Amino acid sequence: MHQTNVLANVRVVLSHTTHPGNIGAAARAMKTMGLSRLYLINPRLFPDAQTTAMAAGADDVLENAVVCATLDEALQGVALTAGMSARVRDISQEVFAPRDAMPLVAQQATQQEVALLFGTEMSGLTNEELARCQFMVRIPVNPEYSSLNLAAAVQLLSYELRLACEQVDDLAPTLLPAPAEQVERFFQHLESTLHEVGFLNDHHSAKHSTKLMHKLRRLYARARLEQEEINILRGILSATTSARVALKAESKGQVGDV
Amino acid sequence: MHQTNVLANVRVVLSHTTHPGNIGAAARAMKTMGLSRLYLINPRLFPDAQTTAMAAGADDVLENAVVCATLDEALQGVALTAGMSARVRDISQEVFAPRDAMPLVAQQATQQEVALLFGTEMSGLTNEELARCQFMVRIPVNPEYSSLNLAAAVQLLSYELRLACEQVDDLAPTLLPAPAEQVERFFQHLESTLHEVGFLNDHHSAKHSTKLMHKLRRLYARARLEQEEINILRGILSATTSARVALKAESKGQVGDV
Repeated sequence: MHQTNVLANVRVVLSHTTHPGNIGAAARAMKTMGLSRLYLINPRLFPDAQTTAMAAGADDVLENAVVCATLDEALQGVALTAGMSARVRDISQEVFAPRDAMPLVAQQATQQEVALLFGTEMSGLTNEELARCQFMVRIPVNPEYSSLNLAAAVQLLSYELRLACEQVDDLAPTLLPAPAEQVERFFQHLESTLHEVGFLNDHHSAKHSTKLMHKLRRLYARARLEQEEINILRGILSATTSARVALKAESKGQVGDV
Repeated sequence: MHQTNVLANVRVVLSHTTHPGNIGAAARAMKTMGLSRLYLINPRLFPDAQTTAMAAGADDVLENAVVCATLDEALQGVALTAGMSARVRDISQEVFAPRDAMPLVAQQATQQEVALLFGTEMSGLTNEELARCQFMVRIPVNPEYSSLNLAAAVQLLSYELRLACEQVDDLAPTLLPAPAEQVERFFQHLESTLHEVGFLNDHHSAKHSTKLMHKLRRLYARARLEQEEINILRGILSATTSARVALKAESKGQVGDV
């Protein structure tokens, strides 16, 4: 598959960007490497004169940018999300160097939509955002000064992605994960079922439930569910619910019979 | 040799930088990758508030920056200069991708001072600057939009250099080229000798002389002269001059004798 076609399947998602100049510089960085699809989740200011100035001719990237209100919206249709990790944290996702991660992204992009997800300048990705990534990418930096500018990080990953695309072969990736919104529906289904069967209940704190769901999310984010697997898992959830409904009806019937 | 020690032998030379913000962003980019030695040849504005703002904490790099009036000053003591090439031009120097070039730079930096040379934003390196580079580095970009920001280019090369340093072994480089100023003295000696022997003369246009010297410079830049080789070449030049002086004296003597 031609490099250009692969890059067309890649979106760069910037979440809650604070400085409008960074959005423009990121657009320029993307375009120099042949990337064109920018998604902005709740940018503080957009459009903005400083953004345009910093884009330096990458106006088309800004004009075609998709401004989203939620992470779900930004990841609609995305089969693989790689998150930019700025600091060492206690996260369970796998962390790769750009040189190891971008071939995986490129390979998936030969077939499906993929996303590079960048958090806000000061604090990086939120836990909610982290849980949606299949893996993290960490740029090797000076341990004494790791203050990489957002647009510089976009530049480095775009560069590595462009190089990775030159190497990518025509082989289909071994896995074809379901798009993000299908995975989300599974999680909603799972959570409601866990409530229904009492594995999660009102005695548990909200914090406990959230923590548990995060752990499950990470597990399945790593596994990268395909559509068929989601269908099976949701089938199991539905069967569980149906069985309970039947059991309840039966037990009600029995009560009536008595 | 430790990565930090290798990086300490690398200077980033920015020539005639127009936008003060780029100097700050370049300093930040350098520091994130462990580089600290910034040289500025005739920057339009330095120091400047915008530079400091864009440096975002890399103030020490700015404070220690060496402002130079000439290229000679900036390359004083440098054994290897790699030039950043922004566009395809009719140049005879070898051009490498960053991934291939930075291991060469790192290897040399285990033993000697090296420089990464970046031209002015709009037009890149001048012919004079090009002629001082042992080879060029070209970042692979989107052929339809190659407008890489100066600081972004510094970021990419610094990143590749940091990665290259992780791979560098303790082996001394096979070649130990003479510092730039020694090479310059050789060229001055060569040019004056060429005038003396009439290979260059007043009948030639200044353009012709400049062009010829550029070709010779490129040849020797590629060869990367060691100190001993310079001594030999200058010895030959001196001998040529002495022989002519002797010959003239003799011929004058003969004239006197007649």
